[in-house]
Amino acid sequence: MSTTFLGLGEMGRALAATTSAAGEPVTVWNRSAGRAHPMAGVAVADSVPEALSGGGAIVVCLFDHASVHEVLDPVASALPGRTLINLTTTTPDEARELAARYDATYLQGAIMAVPAMIGGPASQLFYSGSAAAYERHRALLDRWGSSTYFGADAGLASVYDMAMLTGMYTMIGGFLQGAAMLAAEGVSASAFTARQAPFLAAMAGQLAGYAATVDDRDYAGPGQQSLRFTDAALGALRRASVEQGVGADVLAPVHELVRRQIDAGFGDHGTARLYESLRSTR
Amino acid sequence: MSTTFLGLGEMGRALAATTSAAGEPVTVWNRSAGRAHPMAGVAVADSVPEALSGGGAIVVCLFDHASVHEVLDPVASALPGRTLINLTTTTPDEARELAARYDATYLQGAIMAVPAMIGGPASQLFYSGSAAAYERHRALLDRWGSSTYFGADAGLASVYDMAMLTGMYTMIGGFLQGAAMLAAEGVSASAFTARQAPFLAAMAGQLAGYAATVDDRDYAGPGQQSLRFTDAALGALRRASVEQGVGADVLAPVHELVRRQIDAGFGDHGTARLYESLRSTR
Repeated sequence: MSTTFLGLGEMGRALAATTSAAGEPVTVWNRSAGRAHPMAGVAVADSVPEALSGGGAIVVCLFDHASVHEVLDPVASALPGRTLINLTTTTPDEARELAARYDATYLQGAIMAVPAMIGGPASQLFYSGSAAAYERHRALLDRWGSSTYFGADAGLASVYDMAMLTGMYTMIGGFLQGAAMLAAEGVSASAFTARQAPFLAAMAGQLAGYAATVDDRDYAGPGQQSLRFTDAALGALRRASVEQGVGADVLAPVHELVRRQIDAGFGDHGTARLYESLRSTR
Repeated sequence: MSTTFLGLGEMGRALAATTSAAGEPVTVWNRSAGRAHPMAGVAVADSVPEALSGGGAIVVCLFDHASVHEVLDPVASALPGRTLINLTTTTPDEARELAARYDATYLQGAIMAVPAMIGGPASQLFYSGSAAAYERHRALLDRWGSSTYFGADAGLASVYDMAMLTGMYTMIGGFLQGAAMLAAEGVSASAFTARQAPFLAAMAGQLAGYAATVDDRDYAGPGQQSLRFTDAALGALRRASVEQGVGADVLAPVHELVRRQIDAGFGDHGTARLYESLRSTR
C-alpha cells in the first residue's frame, strides 16, 4: 500500500519527503510534473488516477479549495472506500462541503507550521472529521508533527487553524509597519527585530489575562488599561506612523474597534472590551 | 532633593511607588487629588508649583501630549535649570516639540511594560534626548526597569516605542478576532489562548527571517512563502471569519498590502515583500 500525495508545493513536498524518509512507500502527483522530479525514492505518477492506484491514504495539499475540486471531482468515482486527508487551507464551511461531497472517509487537517518545520519538534497539526481515519493513520500523521484531534465536525480543525493564523498574520503586518517606521530613521529591520521579537513573545504571554477578562466579561474590574487610554495611545501611534511617512492602515481597524466601544459609553472599561466589537453575530 | 511625579494614572503611580519604596524622597501631584491619597511615604502637593519645589528631577506621566502642555505651560518660567523626564506617550515630533518648547534639560522616555511590571525584571524603558540627564539620573531610571539610551534626538525613543507597540496592538486585535471566531463554536478564549500564546511566541521567533529578507530586499530568494499563496490564505481567513459571524476588519488591511504587491506583478515573490507596500515615503 502506497500513500498518495496530491500537490507538491513547498508544503506538499515536505509532507511527502518526510513520509518517504521514514521508509514508507509514497506516490506523488503534481499538476506541473517538474516539481516531482528531484525527490529520491518516491514514485511519480503521470495522472491522478495513476497516483491513486497505490491503495493507501490520499493526502491532498493543494493551492486552495477550488484546486481540490479541480483535482478530485474528475476521480470522484474512485474514492469510495478510500481515506481522504485534506491538508489544503480551506474555511470551515469549505471543509464540511468537501467531507459531504466525496464518498470517502474524510479527515481535515490544518498545519500549524512552515514547510521547513515539518517532521520537527515544533510542528503541530490539527485534525477533525472521521475519528476512525484519525486512529487508523495515526502513525502517518505523527511523522509530520504532533497531532491533535478536535472532533467529528470536519470544519472544526479549520476554525482553530484560522483563528490561530489571524493572530499570526496581523502580528506580521504590525511588525512590518513598525520596521518601516524605524527604517525612516536608518534603523535596519534586523536591529528592530532583535528588540521586537522578544517583546512580542513576552506580550503573547500576557494574552491569558485578556482571555480571562473576556471569558468573565469583567471589563470593569481593577488593573485594566482603559479603552480611553488605549484610544489616546493608538491615536499617537497613527500620528507617529504618518510622521514617519508610513501608512497606518494595519493599525486603523484596531483603533476603530476601540472607538466603537467608547462611543457605546465604555471608555472607562478595560481594553479587552474591544472583543465586544468582534463578538459573533451567528 | 525630592523627585517630582506629575500624573498618577496607573503608570504614574507605579513609577512613584517604586521610587519611594527604594527610600528616595518623592513628591506627587495629580489633577484629581483623590488618586494620590493612599500612597504611603509620599508627599502630596496641592498644585504643580508646590510639586516642583522639591528641586529634583521632574517626571511627567500624563494622559497625552495635550495634557503635558496643559500642566507644564503655566509653570514654564519655573523650568530653567531643571531636568524634565517625559514618560507620557507622545509621537516623535511631539517629543521634539516639547524638548524645544521648555527651557529645561529634556529627556524623553518610553515605557515598554504594563504598570504591574514596573521595577521588575521584564520592564524595559527607552530614552533619548539629553545624554547628560540620562547619565545624571541613571540610578532613578534603573529603578523602573532596564534602561536603553538611543541618542540626542528627543524623538528617537518614541519611534522605537511606537514601532514596538504597533506590533503589539495589531497582535492583540488579531488575537481577539481569533477568540471571537472560536467562541462561535463554544470554545472559551482561555482554551484558545493556551494554544495561541505559545504559537505567537514561536512565530515571533520567525520574524528575524522576515527582517533579513527585508534588509537584503531579497524577495525572490528560495524557501519563501509566495505572496500568491498568502493571498489565498488571507482570502480563506476572511471568508472563515465571515462564516463564523465575526468581522474580518483587523485582517483586511494586511490582505490589501499583499494584493498591492501582487497587482504590481510580484505574486511569485516572498510574503516579506508586503513591506514594500509600507516603505516610508519620507
